[in-house]
Amino acid sequence: MDYTKLYAKRALQLERSAIAALKDEAKTVPGILSLGEGVPAPELFPVEELSIVAAKVFKEEGREVLQYGDGLGGLKLRRHLSRIMTKYGINIEPDQIQVTSGSMQSLDMAARLFLEAGDSVLVEDPTFIDAKNCLAMTGASLKGISCDEEGMDLQLLVEALETDSSIKAIYVIPDYQNPTGLCWSDKRRREFMALVAKYNVIILEDNPYGEITYTGKYHKALSAYDAKGQVLFMGSLSKTLSPGLRIGWVAGRAEIMTQLSLVKECSDIHSSLPDHALAAGFMNIYSYDDHVASMNKVYKDRRDTLVKELQNELPDFTFTVPEGGFFLWLALPVGVNEYEFFQNAIKAGVLVIPGTPFFVNKEERGYVRLNFTGLGPDDLTEAVKRLAKAYQNMIK
Amino acid sequence: MDYTKLYAKRALQLERSAIAALKDEAKTVPGILSLGEGVPAPELFPVEELSIVAAKVFKEEGREVLQYGDGLGGLKLRRHLSRIMTKYGINIEPDQIQVTSGSMQSLDMAARLFLEAGDSVLVEDPTFIDAKNCLAMTGASLKGISCDEEGMDLQLLVEALETDSSIKAIYVIPDYQNPTGLCWSDKRRREFMALVAKYNVIILEDNPYGEITYTGKYHKALSAYDAKGQVLFMGSLSKTLSPGLRIGWVAGRAEIMTQLSLVKECSDIHSSLPDHALAAGFMNIYSYDDHVASMNKVYKDRRDTLVKELQNELPDFTFTVPEGGFFLWLALPVGVNEYEFFQNAIKAGVLVIPGTPFFVNKEERGYVRLNFTGLGPDDLTEAVKRLAKAYQNMIK
Repeated sequence: MDYTKLYAKRALQLERSAIAALKDEAKTVPGILSLGEGVPAPELFPVEELSIVAAKVFKEEGREVLQYGDGLGGLKLRRHLSRIMTKYGINIEPDQIQVTSGSMQSLDMAARLFLEAGDSVLVEDPTFIDAKNCLAMTGASLKGISCDEEGMDLQLLVEALETDSSIKAIYVIPDYQNPTGLCWSDKRRREFMALVAKYNVIILEDNPYGEITYTGKYHKALSAYDAKGQVLFMGSLSKTLSPGLRIGWVAGRAEIMTQLSLVKECSDIHSSLPDHALAAGFMNIYSYDDHVASMNKVYKDRRDTLVKELQNELPDFTFTVPEGGFFLWLALPVGVNEYEFFQNAIKAGVLVIPGTPFFVNKEERGYVRLNFTGLGPDDLTEAVKRLAKAYQNMIK
Repeated sequence: MDYTKLYAKRALQLERSAIAALKDEAKTVPGILSLGEGVPAPELFPVEELSIVAAKVFKEEGREVLQYGDGLGGLKLRRHLSRIMTKYGINIEPDQIQVTSGSMQSLDMAARLFLEAGDSVLVEDPTFIDAKNCLAMTGASLKGISCDEEGMDLQLLVEALETDSSIKAIYVIPDYQNPTGLCWSDKRRREFMALVAKYNVIILEDNPYGEITYTGKYHKALSAYDAKGQVLFMGSLSKTLSPGLRIGWVAGRAEIMTQLSLVKECSDIHSSLPDHALAAGFMNIYSYDDHVASMNKVYKDRRDTLVKELQNELPDFTFTVPEGGFFLWLALPVGVNEYEFFQNAIKAGVLVIPGTPFFVNKEERGYVRLNFTGLGPDDLTEAVKRLAKAYQNMIK
């Protein structure tokens, strides 16, 4: 059978993510060090604690959590998530929180609720690669708005909103963005919200990295400035507790949440309730905040190591030191091709991710994305030495 | 904000499921007995075993399963699922299995892969209510094909396929269907597959109930007769192990599975890997087959009780004794309105589900769906007595 004739347009346009393909390429190199994947450090997962909690959950709540249950997700977990959001200045009740199977599902559900062919959605340019695929699945067109050091360029934004009536939503990652590590200033957040309040658009605020802060500071979320009810806040436990568990959430006005729950119902009924009980149980017995703080201490050391080594070994390269999150966005010297650098880096034994696939407007840009949370300081030091060797090979 | 102007058409058409609304209505009645929900018996969940396995999983595999992992789902689980499918005569390798967050997600992903506005999808009439919403979300039109005691009416099917070129897929539940409890005969399965092989259509075979057999017999799946590669088989652990865990799967030809994995990637990356390890760990240490067999013994007793009580207490009502699954499809005496019966049943303290919402063609049909797995024999007996009382009140 020729299946391609049967696929829906939305599925036909899907291609394997650039990162996935690159990672496969890198796997063939023995001893390669990966700065490529955006993964938490597995040695920091609280496995002993979760082992104790899991045994307890099935013994004490097994008959309840193994059954069909609340479509919004476990209530005990939603109470914790409501508390976590107060760190960003958000006050939303547990019954306005939809637990999802991770941030990607939050975005997928929100996109299916609002976007369809004929609509446009604005995104930061560059933005999270997988979000591009996910948004495009709805049939909507993506349009990139550039950012400066403080956040989305509001002049470009207002021009787009004034001239394009097809814009229905704006997708942003204001806290330590993937891929740039950029964190919007508080001033820009206020100005952005004041501006968008004049338009009938939905703001999809993705915040998987907000708690991974190296200054100790939490920024007020866009949602905290939302007088009109146009923001859907999307949080995640993937970076702070575990990505394998697939726990994310969406929070917003009751009216939207009710309609979103119908999308959830015919997507997968609800997410895994034992997992919700596990995460809630961990937060009841142990201190989630202490866990995050001790994790951030380790990640800050790693960021510092990467920054120092880049400054020493690759002085021709430039970057902004990220104040949180998982990534450093490295600008290559003028004239250095990022794909050539990527290939040479693999030969030298390091995986980095070329920056171009993150852009909506795909001209060659001269960036690579480096993750610093997945490797220890010694490996990070060695990885940068290898990158320096790759660069030397290119310019000699 | 007026959100309704912003919702996508696919989401605007969603309504809360009829069953969900009815269940809420019923909750207001104290002491009500529910034959309404399609739930497994929570007292049969292996909570002690899962408590032991869960502690072990996090201790031994925690750092692996808590991390991002294989988009297809845990390999150990996929090996077990591959073995389970052999019971239906299916031989599919673990790398052609996509683990999902339950059967609903399997259907949602398959629907998004193949269906869009302008397409039609054929379904058994009546069919699973939530599947109707899920399929309609793609923009495709649903068309119902009636069934007889052996399965889908092939005369009606061939007429549809010959006259309607928009038909891209056929969604069926051949084993102990929800809502009718009907199981297709082996002859009808062979004839159905021989017929559809002449057309360029995809068969979405949903099989959540196949292992819940009261004859000990497993039927060969449609997928087992699939020479052309047009069947996607969708299985589930929701009825045999736990619905709260949300574990389902899709299996089919490698080419389709690769494209489906891209849909999964931008739906939620992958499903919960600790849950996959938990289910696989349970199947490694304990006998899943013995667990299912002992569960079926309990459910068979419940079915027998319900059948006997209906025959004694409601001799005017007719039904076919289900040989497996969770449901009995009760035909009301001519002239008895099913909604009136439903309302009277609630007043008498029993929840049943009216049959009409399960049909694509929504003329009033005179059926109610009864679940018999969620209540013990004494409660089932009492529930039928209450139904008889409700009926007596209607005809006196």
